[in-house]
Amino acid sequence: MNARGIVIWFTGVPASGKSTIAAAVQKELSARGLAVENLDSDQVRANLSPNLGYTVEARDENTRRLAWMSQMLSKHGINVIVAAVSPLRSHRDRARQWCEQFVEVFVDCPTEVCQQRDPKGLYARAARGEVNDIAGLHMPYEAPNGAEVHCPTHRATVDECAQAVLDKLEEINCLHLL
Amino acid sequence: MNARGIVIWFTGVPASGKSTIAAAVQKELSARGLAVENLDSDQVRANLSPNLGYTVEARDENTRRLAWMSQMLSKHGINVIVAAVSPLRSHRDRARQWCEQFVEVFVDCPTEVCQQRDPKGLYARAARGEVNDIAGLHMPYEAPNGAEVHCPTHRATVDECAQAVLDKLEEINCLHLL
Repeated sequence: MNARGIVIWFTGVPASGKSTIAAAVQKELSARGLAVENLDSDQVRANLSPNLGYTVEARDENTRRLAWMSQMLSKHGINVIVAAVSPLRSHRDRARQWCEQFVEVFVDCPTEVCQQRDPKGLYARAARGEVNDIAGLHMPYEAPNGAEVHCPTHRATVDECAQAVLDKLEEINCLHLL
Repeated sequence: MNARGIVIWFTGVPASGKSTIAAAVQKELSARGLAVENLDSDQVRANLSPNLGYTVEARDENTRRLAWMSQMLSKHGINVIVAAVSPLRSHRDRARQWCEQFVEVFVDCPTEVCQQRDPKGLYARAARGEVNDIAGLHMPYEAPNGAEVHCPTHRATVDECAQAVLDKLEEINCLHLL
């Protein structure tokens, strides 16, 4: 197999909507018969890094592992979806460097809206003083400068965001790989 | 892609010849046009687990990661080669459980011969008292009971051992997957 898979990397603060849009994109790619693997950060952490934590160093390590696995899968023609806060530009730039075909998706949502959504209760725990390492709140989140796709989830639906990603893949001919 | 890849798992004490036979098998599979990924334990450690170490717990963790990556790649039809001491039966049994098509290769060589080969200087370091955690010497190595292939590298050549693995793959029809 020679064709490289595409790596679609969703970045954004917690509760911005990364995993939801990623799942919608995955569903559509699978429906088209494309090989696709969803490397959800939480799942990969559970399997590869149960004790890794969320320090600056740990986040660097986690995103490095995701990037390494992405390049390995994509070089065999598997399309890869990554949903990970990946707060620093260096995290995403390393992944871009390692993966031949890379699409960065900025899942963009104001912190106040994320705090209201809070599907995992993370911001509630922060409000109770139980966590103090949320990217975009306590720790830096560097918004992308040149992401291929911008998904403002406070004013666009999941379907609209997923479609924006698919349109980009169409534009760069990634949906015709297999 | 529906066909599962095969996972070929080489186990044996350090310097028994795992990586050498694995490389020979990989070369042959690639020459036949099969998709194959070689998850060499040292390389995967360097990328995923730079600080993991060689305690009983760390070895369990490392082999769990290898098994997890093997199932992920193989479910997309990639054939996977793993060369890892994986000293306990539980390490290999977990991998077998997670991977649909699994071939265990016991790379078997008396410790005295491994000590003479010692390509990485590991046994020499042990002799100088610098390391004390070599499987089969200081720590347990549980030889497989029911490995699909047995490679006694002190009395068989690399080519003979690689051929024994390929014969097994042929026998179970794994070379006709793609």
